[in-house]
Amino acid sequence: MNDTVYLNGVFGPAADAKVSVFDRGFLFGDGVYEVMPFYQGRAFGWQGHMERFERSLAAINIPNPHTDKQWREIVKQLLAENGDTQLIYLQVTRGAAIPRKHVYDPTITPTVFAASMSFTPVQTSGMSVITFPDERWDHCFIKSLNLLPNVLASQEAKMQGVPEAILVRDGFVKEGASSNVFMVKNNEIFTTPTDGSILRGVTRGIICDLCASLGFKVKEEPISVDALLDADEVWLSSVGKEITPVIQVDDQRIGSGKPGPMWERAFPLYQACIQRDAHAL
Amino acid sequence: MNDTVYLNGVFGPAADAKVSVFDRGFLFGDGVYEVMPFYQGRAFGWQGHMERFERSLAAINIPNPHTDKQWREIVKQLLAENGDTQLIYLQVTRGAAIPRKHVYDPTITPTVFAASMSFTPVQTSGMSVITFPDERWDHCFIKSLNLLPNVLASQEAKMQGVPEAILVRDGFVKEGASSNVFMVKNNEIFTTPTDGSILRGVTRGIICDLCASLGFKVKEEPISVDALLDADEVWLSSVGKEITPVIQVDDQRIGSGKPGPMWERAFPLYQACIQRDAHAL
Repeated sequence: MNDTVYLNGVFGPAADAKVSVFDRGFLFGDGVYEVMPFYQGRAFGWQGHMERFERSLAAINIPNPHTDKQWREIVKQLLAENGDTQLIYLQVTRGAAIPRKHVYDPTITPTVFAASMSFTPVQTSGMSVITFPDERWDHCFIKSLNLLPNVLASQEAKMQGVPEAILVRDGFVKEGASSNVFMVKNNEIFTTPTDGSILRGVTRGIICDLCASLGFKVKEEPISVDALLDADEVWLSSVGKEITPVIQVDDQRIGSGKPGPMWERAFPLYQACIQRDAHAL
Repeated sequence: MNDTVYLNGVFGPAADAKVSVFDRGFLFGDGVYEVMPFYQGRAFGWQGHMERFERSLAAINIPNPHTDKQWREIVKQLLAENGDTQLIYLQVTRGAAIPRKHVYDPTITPTVFAASMSFTPVQTSGMSVITFPDERWDHCFIKSLNLLPNVLASQEAKMQGVPEAILVRDGFVKEGASSNVFMVKNNEIFTTPTDGSILRGVTRGIICDLCASLGFKVKEEPISVDALLDADEVWLSSVGKEITPVIQVDDQRIGSGKPGPMWERAFPLYQACIQRDAHAL
């Protein structure tokens, strides 16, 4: 993260920003977050991210502590301090309360933390990934701070020398530890349905729209691991990964082992979307 | 919590103890905890709690930052400062690292937090509880900080005016949001098996031993919700609840609606165990 962060109304150095040990984020993971990209100071997908942030907050009964305008002011200041091509990180926890107990007072003041991280958009030479058991809770549509299973999956990928793990439950692909999954087979494009067991990725939604503009309706259907390994192409999507082609899953080469032709069409369209839709706050 | 807490080597007022916003406990719930009871300064179940703490740490690859002797010194100082009949809370997170990313450097220094809370041992007049869907992840044997589902279940119980929620998955009882569950039917005692989907409660283990001394081998078998509602007795166990009789589950009265005869036998034995086994650190 870059040097200046925002915490509860104050901008200051990252190393100085501290919260109470009784913050419920620290004790229970009782909070939610959002990550959104800025290209040369211009927001891409702002509305989608803020709507999802609102849904995550509502799902765990934390009132949104700021108006959209207030969030924009925080983000603009971070960009001014830290640089203009950044991933912005927003986190709200339920707040701090002594003594520690599971139940909460709904009138507690939420903790608001925001930071940014300079980002170098997507690698396009193709990524290798592993599969890993999806051990997460039932409500992964909430972008919550209960991320221990994602941490353990990501770390296992790192140990195996790859940058992402695809989470699998009962033989079916759910999503990456921090990305959504697409598959191309026989000129059809598939992605896992958003039934609550995965995060509804904002980038995922942008890609679905973009594929439609190419004349392909993305089929939201369960994807078996067997189908994934036999795919012509696999892509991952996230704000940081944009659309990243996957060329190997575990020991299995995907398609030709190089970024595929459908990705070659989609990728420049995604870049064109950024140019067209990214906007000043 | 009482006024003095411990954080990374320093004892000080609870209100002053702060951690970095980049602590992985705050960002990912990347840590584990333990709660253990002290009666008039004497530890009850220390070894069982410390063994479980060790298992939780190992399960998520955090090295135990202290020896048993060092943990004892921390706890003794908290008791000296805060009082002698306390629940001691120990928490270790993976530590702080900038920038935020899921993967971690295994050599990061863990964050160590300890606090205490004065405690008034068990209510014995009988407790009402609700059932609530178990929405948690697959590895609930780890006493991790990913407690959002437990928070939401506990809060729903509070909203319905009761102090605990029993978590149910696929028609079967798992455990309480912060307790284990026992059931008595036709003079047999049952509890949910520890297959990884529940926490292996230290108090649960003490109660199993105690029932054996009464001549009852506790049957570790899946308990259906239907069986629970039709039970003669239901008990909850935890360090704070000790053995608490449940007299109502949702709208269903349990047994006679009063603490049952088996509980009347078990409860004084539990108190006798404390007198016999609690020991100075």
